[in-house]
Amino acid sequence: MKIGVKILPKSEVLDSQGRAVESMLKNNGRAVHQCRVGKYVQLEVTEANESKALALAREITEFVLYNPLIETFELEVLKGQ
Amino acid sequence: MKIGVKILPKSEVLDSQGRAVESMLKNNGRAVHQCRVGKYVQLEVTEANESKALALAREITEFVLYNPLIETFELEVLKGQ
Repeated sequence: MKIGVKILPKSEVLDSQGRAVESMLKNNGRAVHQCRVGKYVQLEVTEANESKALALAREITEFVLYNPLIETFELEVLKGQ
Repeated sequence: MKIGVKILPKSEVLDSQGRAVESMLKNNGRAVHQCRVGKYVQLEVTEANESKALALAREITEFVLYNPLIETFELEVLKGQ
């Protein structure tokens, strides 16, 4: 089962990469309010049960993928991929 | 309107970061088949119409966010965030 992990910097943390993209887009006439840049990890786990796969992905994300001090994450099950 | 842009390396491209995470997880006893690491960008556009916002996000992604030679991307509308 494929699980997507979206990792973004917390809103109270200065996201310098996001700010750079945002101001560049504004300078180029694209109507953008805000932009945040993070990581996206696609995990293919052997576990076929959806809730167990999600629990494993959560455990893996907390184990190595994200930094709880400055980031938040969200999981999604990727069906039919 | 918030649009999420998920950018991943193409499957035929060597994803060294993903390989590193994958082998590390396997060495630590996590049942993972495959792992791919990419970028996640959250764009908040001023456009309120969903299809126009998606079209703008696609244009922005093709303009600066992804490298068509080695990456693929996917858009998603983030509702209620």
